[in-house]
Amino acid sequence: MDRLEQQMRFLLEADKEKFIGRQTYLSDGVRKENDAEHAWHLALMVILLSEYANQPIDVLKTVTMVLIHDVVEIDAGDTYAYDTAGQATAREREERAADRLFGLLPEEQGKKLRALWEEFEARETPEAKFARTMDNLQPLMLNGATDGKAWVEHNVKLSQVMKRNQRSREGSERLWQMMWDSIIQPNVEKGRLVDDRSSQTDEL
Amino acid sequence: MDRLEQQMRFLLEADKEKFIGRQTYLSDGVRKENDAEHAWHLALMVILLSEYANQPIDVLKTVTMVLIHDVVEIDAGDTYAYDTAGQATAREREERAADRLFGLLPEEQGKKLRALWEEFEARETPEAKFARTMDNLQPLMLNGATDGKAWVEHNVKLSQVMKRNQRSREGSERLWQMMWDSIIQPNVEKGRLVDDRSSQTDEL
Repeated sequence: MDRLEQQMRFLLEADKEKFIGRQTYLSDGVRKENDAEHAWHLALMVILLSEYANQPIDVLKTVTMVLIHDVVEIDAGDTYAYDTAGQATAREREERAADRLFGLLPEEQGKKLRALWEEFEARETPEAKFARTMDNLQPLMLNGATDGKAWVEHNVKLSQVMKRNQRSREGSERLWQMMWDSIIQPNVEKGRLVDDRSSQTDEL
Repeated sequence: MDRLEQQMRFLLEADKEKFIGRQTYLSDGVRKENDAEHAWHLALMVILLSEYANQPIDVLKTVTMVLIHDVVEIDAGDTYAYDTAGQATAREREERAADRLFGLLPEEQGKKLRALWEEFEARETPEAKFARTMDNLQPLMLNGATDGKAWVEHNVKLSQVMKRNQRSREGSERLWQMMWDSIIQPNVEKGRLVDDRSSQTDEL
């Protein structure tokens, strides 16, 4: 198989990302989002919001990272951010998926994409930190726009959102501040996120 | 409204691109694609296939171009590639849509994105030529993967595909050659594209 055939085979296989459903509702509050739509939205966010990154980022690298960050879910499936049991086993499933999927590409190109996926997961570089902040901001934005529909359905608690976002400020202090002020706090006040702060304090 | 609010307003409005349906079937042959999924796929193609561009391209610029190339369809709707009447009025509708949508952004950022959209439409730069080739290759790939389902439904003729692709080689000779050899020609042979070459010759 020649190089271009390998690339086209990967690109056709990648089409399946459009079938991987997420828990977040789109802004109409009717249909839920899929992974390809989500990745497109993140890429647009990286381009428009990179000025708020705490550290300078390589925009093309970050865009590439978000475009492929969920490719492994073609085999491994989407694990809801607040599904603790699922999260525990996700990593192993995703490693196997990465072997197969990035393995479809010409070797050096597959290695490059896989390294970007690993970098996203490891969350150590400025690009990965910013990409992860986008990955948290985007569903927050849609939850905010749909009166917290997915949160209400899953009875999501403030402590869960805070845990999920405990490192969001590492990508961008400014965006994290906006996420808290404009999305999280107003939704707690409106009762769309369960405010479990006092019970947490009791447990300590 | 501050700068970040304007950016977030645009990013939320952009969510509507996920509701704009296209005529192409996804690789499962069941559901049709939407504009956001299509744009994600093009961005991935630009990154993986840029080596085949006839002229060197700025990859980030080209990726940004394909990510936003259909944003205007939020207001103007998608016009099927082989809908001649629709194509004739699309431009005016799309100009009005560009005014409104890019106008949501901070001025300099809106102008930059709009200029990229105009560049894509004008098809003069290496980036625009390559982006347009991707915009033709991607639905060809999906039509090929679904036994030409959308072509058969619309009774699409080879001459229409050739007209649509008459400038595809300007972006990449190598990719155009693959599109012809691996997708178009086999689908003509299998009768999934109506071979109207002889009747065309008769008319000349």
